[in-house]
Amino acid sequence: MLTFDIQPLDRHGALSQQLQAKIDNKTKPLGSLGRLEAVALQIGLIQNSLKPRTEKPQVLVFAADHGLAQAGISAYPAEVTRQMVGNFLNGGAAINVFCRQHQLPLWVVDAGVNHDFAPHPRLIEAKIKHGTANMLHQAAMRVEECQDAIERGAAIVRQFQQQGCNTLLLGEMGIGNTAAASLLLHKLTDWPLADCVGKGAGLDDAGLQRKQRILQQVLQYHAHVTEPLAVLATFGGLELAMLVGAYGQAAELRMVCVVDGFIASVAVLVAAKRYPAVLDYCLFAHQSAERGHQALLRHLNANPLLSLDLRLGEASGAVLAYPLLQAALLFLTEMHSFEQAGVSHQF
Amino acid sequence: MLTFDIQPLDRHGALSQQLQAKIDNKTKPLGSLGRLEAVALQIGLIQNSLKPRTEKPQVLVFAADHGLAQAGISAYPAEVTRQMVGNFLNGGAAINVFCRQHQLPLWVVDAGVNHDFAPHPRLIEAKIKHGTANMLHQAAMRVEECQDAIERGAAIVRQFQQQGCNTLLLGEMGIGNTAAASLLLHKLTDWPLADCVGKGAGLDDAGLQRKQRILQQVLQYHAHVTEPLAVLATFGGLELAMLVGAYGQAAELRMVCVVDGFIASVAVLVAAKRYPAVLDYCLFAHQSAERGHQALLRHLNANPLLSLDLRLGEASGAVLAYPLLQAALLFLTEMHSFEQAGVSHQF
Repeated sequence: MLTFDIQPLDRHGALSQQLQAKIDNKTKPLGSLGRLEAVALQIGLIQNSLKPRTEKPQVLVFAADHGLAQAGISAYPAEVTRQMVGNFLNGGAAINVFCRQHQLPLWVVDAGVNHDFAPHPRLIEAKIKHGTANMLHQAAMRVEECQDAIERGAAIVRQFQQQGCNTLLLGEMGIGNTAAASLLLHKLTDWPLADCVGKGAGLDDAGLQRKQRILQQVLQYHAHVTEPLAVLATFGGLELAMLVGAYGQAAELRMVCVVDGFIASVAVLVAAKRYPAVLDYCLFAHQSAERGHQALLRHLNANPLLSLDLRLGEASGAVLAYPLLQAALLFLTEMHSFEQAGVSHQF
Repeated sequence: MLTFDIQPLDRHGALSQQLQAKIDNKTKPLGSLGRLEAVALQIGLIQNSLKPRTEKPQVLVFAADHGLAQAGISAYPAEVTRQMVGNFLNGGAAINVFCRQHQLPLWVVDAGVNHDFAPHPRLIEAKIKHGTANMLHQAAMRVEECQDAIERGAAIVRQFQQQGCNTLLLGEMGIGNTAAASLLLHKLTDWPLADCVGKGAGLDDAGLQRKQRILQQVLQYHAHVTEPLAVLATFGGLELAMLVGAYGQAAELRMVCVVDGFIASVAVLVAAKRYPAVLDYCLFAHQSAERGHQALLRHLNANPLLSLDLRLGEASGAVLAYPLLQAALLFLTEMHSFEQAGVSHQF
């Protein structure tokens, strides 16, 4: 894997105390803005500032296909990946609506869709190959392909950062990618497979059983794989590997990462296995309805902002949580203190 | 109490089916927008429309003082009510910041603050009296005052509706008003008092015990009061009574009500005791950190949008949840269908 130099946040230093004092001096009962206060503190520490703010926030959806989709582990056929990429580029998907609502620019990264797209101003061409291999019979990626994907994810983040962006909202699209994420979750935590596998985009009970059976076969076929990079290459996806590189690079560059749902959280888990400090730069947007996500968030000591039974991906949860992040920064920078407002202090 | 003519929503009629079909035809897995789908459906039914939208949404904070505050049931002195009204009018409070963020107009309603304010363009003068009486010794309001407050709350809502508003975000400010709300909750549900009383704006454990002891005395003094309007007059607050009238009138006029935290939810409970259909017009913004709120929401069969440990009031939670309401309406009206987008349907 790439080497990232990620500094943990100093939660007990002078800046942390100054931020907390600033929060506590606002005209409100102590602690009464709840989770928003923790968000304000975290972003202040990330940006090393008493006046943190988001600059040029960007939404990136990493899209790729999965060879395992041929085995029938999704409620949708594989061509839906490229169709949905088309939908993103045409502005018709949920993520388009939510990005327009919050005036956030959306980019689609072709990490490895099984289709050759015409150039488009919102499409970032980063294809490693036309989808992963079917992991029932071989590793999803060769280790070099996986490393390449990690590096391209990191390179895309560096480019945005150089253009002044300090906040990323990352998501994914790929028919079959909850299966890949579930396998990674199982391999990296040793939790029972059944606790790691959910219905994805909409399997019924029989479909879920079939998905579990197939993933069990995959695990048996690759039982010898345990080294983290090999695990990612064998069981992962091209979009997942790019997300891993993106989170690692963003954390090194002290950018705020708003983490979307189950699959994005698994990518964070992969990155955090090697670089635990990556978690300091993550704001977990929501707890999704996908099985395993709640336990994973607990495992990561993450306290998500929303819990709306979303299970869409596309960075949709991250964008829906974005106004809460903004609210946290705005109260920190704009609210009056007790002194400014002439309001009596607490007894 | 006033008479409101509130029509329950028809959740099994043709419009409900049409809205559900429209939701299900969007380019996303079935049900994958979770709670937002229920919000879109509810507002469609409220507005009797397949293209629901918020028109001229308004934020109103009802402010009043409480005679019981003299007994020391709050972490703050009573004069903080008028100081915070000044802060709202000067734009320095949390609610100001969040209203600016979402471009929502804020109005402060003087329902009964113990101070005579100079006229101000954002202040609605509706004072019934300079705060309630100390309910340790007499009823908070006479029944006529309480009815007057309900009617003024209703009249304010009618006025906004006549100006084209179809969405209200209502909140409150009043030192001592969690105590009044807790008493109403206890009287209307028969739940043990201890389950209805929390730390309000920031009492410590000793303060909470003192508050509980004082509220027990209040209950003993007025043990004979059981008729609902008399309960509201005896144990309520002027801002609470105005909220009751506002919710009833808004529901009659088929307006969307975004319900803030504990105190606002208790006002909804009071209204729903007589008019259960008022709940059909309510969207519960958040589950607060105040004891009793979670149980109350469950009692009202309400599923709040946020759970951020907020305990501020001021309509702050309602405004923080507002972008989720907008997102629900925007996906319903702007997202492409499978046919429009050329995306393969579910298997």
